[in-house]
Amino acid sequence: MSDSCIRGEMADTPDLGSGAERHVGSSPTGCTKYVSLPLPEGGLKVWGGVLKEITVAYNEYGAENTGDNVIYICHALTGDSKVAEWWPKMVGEGKTFDLNRFHIVCANVLGGCMGTTGPASINPDTGKPYGSKFPKYAMSDAVDVFRLFLKTIGVGKLYALVGGSYGGMQVVEWMCRYPNEMERAVIIGASASMNTQALAYDALQKRVIVNDPEYHGGDYYEIGDGKGPKEGLSVARQIAHITYLSRDYLENKFHREKQENWVNPLPFGEDYQVESYFQYQGKKFVGRFDANSYLHIVDAMDRFDVAKEFGSLEKAMANVAAKVRVFSLDEDVLFTEEQSKAIYEALRASGKDVEYHHVSTGSGHDQFLTHPEDLARYIGEFLK
Amino acid sequence: MSDSCIRGEMADTPDLGSGAERHVGSSPTGCTKYVSLPLPEGGLKVWGGVLKEITVAYNEYGAENTGDNVIYICHALTGDSKVAEWWPKMVGEGKTFDLNRFHIVCANVLGGCMGTTGPASINPDTGKPYGSKFPKYAMSDAVDVFRLFLKTIGVGKLYALVGGSYGGMQVVEWMCRYPNEMERAVIIGASASMNTQALAYDALQKRVIVNDPEYHGGDYYEIGDGKGPKEGLSVARQIAHITYLSRDYLENKFHREKQENWVNPLPFGEDYQVESYFQYQGKKFVGRFDANSYLHIVDAMDRFDVAKEFGSLEKAMANVAAKVRVFSLDEDVLFTEEQSKAIYEALRASGKDVEYHHVSTGSGHDQFLTHPEDLARYIGEFLK
Repeated sequence: MSDSCIRGEMADTPDLGSGAERHVGSSPTGCTKYVSLPLPEGGLKVWGGVLKEITVAYNEYGAENTGDNVIYICHALTGDSKVAEWWPKMVGEGKTFDLNRFHIVCANVLGGCMGTTGPASINPDTGKPYGSKFPKYAMSDAVDVFRLFLKTIGVGKLYALVGGSYGGMQVVEWMCRYPNEMERAVIIGASASMNTQALAYDALQKRVIVNDPEYHGGDYYEIGDGKGPKEGLSVARQIAHITYLSRDYLENKFHREKQENWVNPLPFGEDYQVESYFQYQGKKFVGRFDANSYLHIVDAMDRFDVAKEFGSLEKAMANVAAKVRVFSLDEDVLFTEEQSKAIYEALRASGKDVEYHHVSTGSGHDQFLTHPEDLARYIGEFLK
Repeated sequence: MSDSCIRGEMADTPDLGSGAERHVGSSPTGCTKYVSLPLPEGGLKVWGGVLKEITVAYNEYGAENTGDNVIYICHALTGDSKVAEWWPKMVGEGKTFDLNRFHIVCANVLGGCMGTTGPASINPDTGKPYGSKFPKYAMSDAVDVFRLFLKTIGVGKLYALVGGSYGGMQVVEWMCRYPNEMERAVIIGASASMNTQALAYDALQKRVIVNDPEYHGGDYYEIGDGKGPKEGLSVARQIAHITYLSRDYLENKFHREKQENWVNPLPFGEDYQVESYFQYQGKKFVGRFDANSYLHIVDAMDRFDVAKEFGSLEKAMANVAAKVRVFSLDEDVLFTEEQSKAIYEALRASGKDVEYHHVSTGSGHDQFLTHPEDLARYIGEFLK
């Protein structure tokens, strides 16, 4: 759908996202744009090194920016800047993020593979893809890049800052560290740090990628088909994908039904629909995502810990100036009800303007993308 | 501890279990014994082929077999016949499975690697390990081998048949198919079939093993160090191990604490205690278990489906003659409360002598091994 977009100077930015599933609805899709950020002399210091060039891929939708109507949306772990495509039930004319009223901005995260500088981008020091040379970054670095990006394109104080999952963690970081940059903050299915079980699942995901023989220490872009550890990335995605859905959702969707006209190609594989489904999810993901980007993004998420950063969750939240709405998603094992509630409680303890809702469709973490009806209503009210 | 045991003719049975963690308590350990089963002419037909020789490794403990005091215990997925060692809180003098009163028998499952014929055993047709030639088997085959084994060593009707997890599924199969072979049946943390999410986790576990370059199509015993897909097996075990423990248990045990004096050897690995813990679990498991055995045992578990076998769960349970006690374990995601309750409800619908208890320690599936105090009490009462 971006075929009709004229890509500018940054058209050489790696585009590994062509296979992404798009929910094309009535939402305007816009063209992804690219901006090269003005960096400090010597480059931008991030947690694990320095980046001398940063390009940010972004999309803008809706009304003109009138200075008081900008909503910035932080995408989830493997999302991209095309928020009207991946959140079509929320972004559109007359919808919660009403394009008649708001100027909506979304950018691909640092380290990503959907247009913003990441491990597959060209390292100016070598003229080759960064690969293993791409520095690890902290969530605060990702937020700083977003902030510099917004300043660069002329966006000031945000009417609202919104994010789900990984994006919700960015909202948490942002509102605690730079409290005066947004009037409203919306945190959906996120937490102030990953829980222990989630860390364990992430550790396995990283392990299967780096131990895939095609990983080549991260420098796989110029070896073989250049796609690197596809098997590891597929398995990592499948582990993650199981945690995105509730047990009941999987049970009701697939039971133990066999997939007709499908023979599991794996030895010891069964022909269950659920196996077919997850194999498909893994394959689709490998087609659209870069393994190094996945490693860096998950890595930043795992290290993220607002309580540690500020001394305690209460100290972190004491800084907040925005009105905040916190949403937890039922049957979410990655960002639990307790974790979301802890953010709410810490804000309330400091007397902040905050509300908390536990949203329930029974489908697990991914419901904020797939079943956002209740969210739409609550957030719509908040944005009035 | 079996150093003091004199191993008989079957001492050439592969022993991959030397690294197993043993909870050595006051329980008598006994010596593992081996018996070659008398098979039908041409061998025993199993789900995916024929076995011409079957040896069973087993342990006996406690009082003499008086014909009315034998309790047979089916071990869990990666367990073995040394039940007094892996269930020391339950098996011993004066304990629930009181060795002063009962004659306790436990045997290693078909396809295992703890002494009973499995993929690492010598294939009489070739004189080499079975490897890929080991036939897939059904849970009913595993039960039939146990039954033939018991007959062979002179055990008749059981005072009680007991099993947890994988072993509990064997109890379900056994009591439905051969209702007159036990007076009592105890089913702990088990179900009539794997739930959909558990199937998905199992599919990934099988995948990482068979896609490990060291798997060699299952014929790895005579290649390299003969240990095969160690990385895949380690990852598989770690995926499984996460599901054995509740999220709260992991949270309370490890939080986000760093492991002192440990540097995660993996790129993108963090030094969290939880990562260290699971890496250790994976490594330990690879030291004691065979990948092909794991594949076969998980495979039989995934295909197991009593409702499908008998037409419905109600039809299956209508056969049962034993008194039954069903236990579910809280926070067990593999064998959920609902699944255990379904067995109980089906038995109750047929007017059987059945009780159901939901046992709660908050630690997840593995609590039947680690925190069996409530189980001990309920089962002790049942065995009086």
